[in-house]
Amino acid sequence: MVLLTAQEAEQAAIRVMARCDALAAISSTPDQLTRVYLSPEHLRANQLVGEWMRLSGMVVWQDSVGNICGRYEGQVAGAPALLLGSHLDTVRNAGRYDGMLGVLTALEVVAHLYHSNQRLPVALEVIGFADEEGTRFGITLLGSKGVTGQWSAGWLECTDAEGISVAQAMRDAGLDPEKVEDAQRAQSEICAYLELHIEQGPCLEAANLALGVVTAINGARRLHCTFTGRAGHAGTVPMGQRQDALVAAAEWMMAVERLTTRSGQHLVATVGCIESLPGAVNVIPGQVKLSLDVRGPQDAPLAALLARLLALAQRIGARRGVVFNSEEFYRIDAIVCDEDLQQRWHNGVMQVQGNSMALPSGAGHDAIAIAARWPVGMLFVRCERGISHHPDECVTLSDVALAIQAYCHTVLSWQHR
Amino acid sequence: MVLLTAQEAEQAAIRVMARCDALAAISSTPDQLTRVYLSPEHLRANQLVGEWMRLSGMVVWQDSVGNICGRYEGQVAGAPALLLGSHLDTVRNAGRYDGMLGVLTALEVVAHLYHSNQRLPVALEVIGFADEEGTRFGITLLGSKGVTGQWSAGWLECTDAEGISVAQAMRDAGLDPEKVEDAQRAQSEICAYLELHIEQGPCLEAANLALGVVTAINGARRLHCTFTGRAGHAGTVPMGQRQDALVAAAEWMMAVERLTTRSGQHLVATVGCIESLPGAVNVIPGQVKLSLDVRGPQDAPLAALLARLLALAQRIGARRGVVFNSEEFYRIDAIVCDEDLQQRWHNGVMQVQGNSMALPSGAGHDAIAIAARWPVGMLFVRCERGISHHPDECVTLSDVALAIQAYCHTVLSWQHR
Repeated sequence: MVLLTAQEAEQAAIRVMARCDALAAISSTPDQLTRVYLSPEHLRANQLVGEWMRLSGMVVWQDSVGNICGRYEGQVAGAPALLLGSHLDTVRNAGRYDGMLGVLTALEVVAHLYHSNQRLPVALEVIGFADEEGTRFGITLLGSKGVTGQWSAGWLECTDAEGISVAQAMRDAGLDPEKVEDAQRAQSEICAYLELHIEQGPCLEAANLALGVVTAINGARRLHCTFTGRAGHAGTVPMGQRQDALVAAAEWMMAVERLTTRSGQHLVATVGCIESLPGAVNVIPGQVKLSLDVRGPQDAPLAALLARLLALAQRIGARRGVVFNSEEFYRIDAIVCDEDLQQRWHNGVMQVQGNSMALPSGAGHDAIAIAARWPVGMLFVRCERGISHHPDECVTLSDVALAIQAYCHTVLSWQHR
Repeated sequence: MVLLTAQEAEQAAIRVMARCDALAAISSTPDQLTRVYLSPEHLRANQLVGEWMRLSGMVVWQDSVGNICGRYEGQVAGAPALLLGSHLDTVRNAGRYDGMLGVLTALEVVAHLYHSNQRLPVALEVIGFADEEGTRFGITLLGSKGVTGQWSAGWLECTDAEGISVAQAMRDAGLDPEKVEDAQRAQSEICAYLELHIEQGPCLEAANLALGVVTAINGARRLHCTFTGRAGHAGTVPMGQRQDALVAAAEWMMAVERLTTRSGQHLVATVGCIESLPGAVNVIPGQVKLSLDVRGPQDAPLAALLARLLALAQRIGARRGVVFNSEEFYRIDAIVCDEDLQQRWHNGVMQVQGNSMALPSGAGHDAIAIAARWPVGMLFVRCERGISHHPDECVTLSDVALAIQAYCHTVLSWQHR
C-alpha cells in the first residue's frame, strides 16, 4: 500500500485550489459565482471535470440527469464501487468550495492510486452531482436522486423563473427527459458513498481542528407561525391594555433560544423571517408572522423540543390575549452516518491530525439522498468563520492537503475489504 | 342662563349623528370614507358644514387655507372669540367621528345659544380645520397651522402621490397660494380654543365613563433602530456561537414593555415595524431594523425612559456581540392643556356625569398647533373598544348627548368672564 505523503498531498491541494478557481470562473453571472442545473455553465463544468477525471485514469460519462461520472476499476473489472463525490452546482453568488471541494479532492484520491499504480478490491467512482442546491427549479438533490431513482412524479414539469420546465431544460442541454431512470444505479453496483464537504459552520474552527467526522445529517422542521393579537393606536392604548402580537412573539423568541440552548444534543432553532402587521410606526402590531426552523441530528429530541416550543407559544399567547398558530411546511428526518464509514474516516483523520472530532452536519448534502439506498459517510473540512453560500467562503491550502491525505488513507482502508 | 336640557341634548345628538352620517357619505372612495385636503369632497364638506353654521346663526367664511369658519357674535360685536372645533379631513378608509364629532357638537352649542337667544361676553367661533391628518401631502395640521401662521417654507411645493403640489391643489380648489398668510388670526382675536374629540383609546370605556378631560397631549419620539449581529447558517451554527440580531431585538422588546409598564406616568412605548435581514427561513438574522415610538404627557419622564431603553439596548447588544444603533426621526413635545380650561371642562362634565376623569391624549390633535398661540382645552368622548382610523369607529347616541350637554355647560361658564 502506497500512502500519500505530506509533500504529495500539498501538491494535490495546490491542484485542487487551482481547479476550484477554474470552476469558479464558469459562472452565469459576471463577478459572481452562479452555476445552476442544466445551464450552459453546468455543461461546461461537467466537461472540464470530465477531462480531469480522464487525467486521473478514469472512464468518464455524463448520466441521463446530468451528473458527471468517472470510474476507476478495482482489481477485478465490474466490482462494486466505492462512490466518492459531491455536487458541482451552486447557489446564486456562491462560494467556490461548497460541493466542488468534495469532487476535486475525490479526484486526487483516484489520481494517487492511478499514478502509484494501485487498485483496490472495490472500484472507485467519482461523481459530480448535477443539482444539490435546487437553485434553479426550487427542488433539491436532483442529481443524487437521479442515481437513487427517486425523482418525484411532476418534477419534469417544474419550471424555473423564466417558465422553462425541467424537461425542456434537459432537452436544451441535450438530455432526454424520457430517460431519467437510466441514471438509477443498481443496489449491487455501489457498496458505499463517501463525501467530503466544507463544514459550513464554526465548530471545527472553534475546536482548532482542520477535519471532523460527520455523525449524522440534521433532521429539520420548518414552520410558519402566527401570533394574532389586536392592533391599536400606539399613543392611546395604555401598556396594560394591549394585546401586542410582537411583544408576544418576542417573549417566545427568547424562550426558543433559552429552551433550545438548554436542551443541548446539538439542537438549533432559528427564527429567520418576521413580519409585523399592519407594520406602521404608530400602530401596535395586531399580527406577527414568523418562521421557525429547528434542526438536530436525532429525530426524537428534535420532536420533543419542537413540541415544548409550540406548547410554550400557546401559553405565552393565552396569558397575553394573543392567539398562536403554526403550520409545518417542511420536514426532513435526520440521516445517521454509517458506523463503519465513520470509523474508517476516524482512522484516516487520526493518522494525519492526531486526534479527531465527531460532529453533526447542520446543512443538507447529497448524502441525504444517497443514504436511502447505500451507507454514507462524510468528512468535514474547516472553513473560515463558518461562512458559506457567500463569496467569502474560504478554506486553507494546508487544511485541504490534510483532507486529501486523510481521504486517501480512508479509501485505502478498503484494500483489506 | 338657559342650560341645555337632557331632552334637548338628545335631539341635538340625533342631529349630530345624522350629520356625521351625511359627511361620511362625502368620500372619494366608494364604500369607504376618505376625504383629503383640497379634494372636491373636502370643498363639498365645507359647503355643507357652512350651511349648518348659517342655520345656527353664524356668519360663515372659508379662510385662505381652506378651513370652514363660522362666527356667532358676543354681547358686543368684535369681542375676542372662544374658538371651538376640530377637523373635517380623514385618513383613508376612516371612521366618521374622528374630527367631525368635534365640529358638529360645537355647532350644537352655538345653535343652543342662538335658539335660546343668548349671547356671551365672548364671541363663539366654530372652525372645521381643513387638514389635520396629513393624508394627502404627508404634512400634518395644515389647517390649524394656517390659523397660527406656522406654515413652513416649502409646504407649497410638497406634492401628493399624483405629483400635484399644495400650491396647485389650492389653485384647483379656488384658493390663492399667495394668500396663505391671510388665514392667520391675530393673538387678540381669540381667547381660547376648545376641542371635543373621540378618545381613540380604551381608557374611558375601561373606566365606564362617557366623558373625560384631557390633561395634556402626549409628546412623542420616534426612532429607527438597528441591531447588527452576524448572519449564519441556521443549521450549522450552534446556539452558543450565534450573534443573532433578532433574538437581541426580542430581548430588548421585552425590556421595552417591562420598563415602560413599570415607569407608569401614562408612558407608552411601541415597536410597530420590524424587519429581519437577510430574512430567510434558514438564515440566522444578521441585522434587524425596527421602529420605536415612545409617548407620554410630560417630556422629562419620557426623555428619561427613552434614555434608559437606549442604554439597555446597548447593554443587551454588547452581551450578545450585536451592535445597536438608533436615530431619532420625529419628536414632538408634550402639550399641557390650560389649567383654567381643564377646570371649566371638569365643571361641565361633573354636572352631567357626576364624576370626572382626567387623562392624557395619546394621539395628536389640532390643539397641538393652536397651543403655540392660545390656551387649549380638550374633552374626550368614549369610543367603542378604542377603535379609530377604521370604519368600525363608534360612539353611542347617549354619550354624544351627554357630551353636548357638558360642552354647553362649559361654554356657558364664559358668561361670567
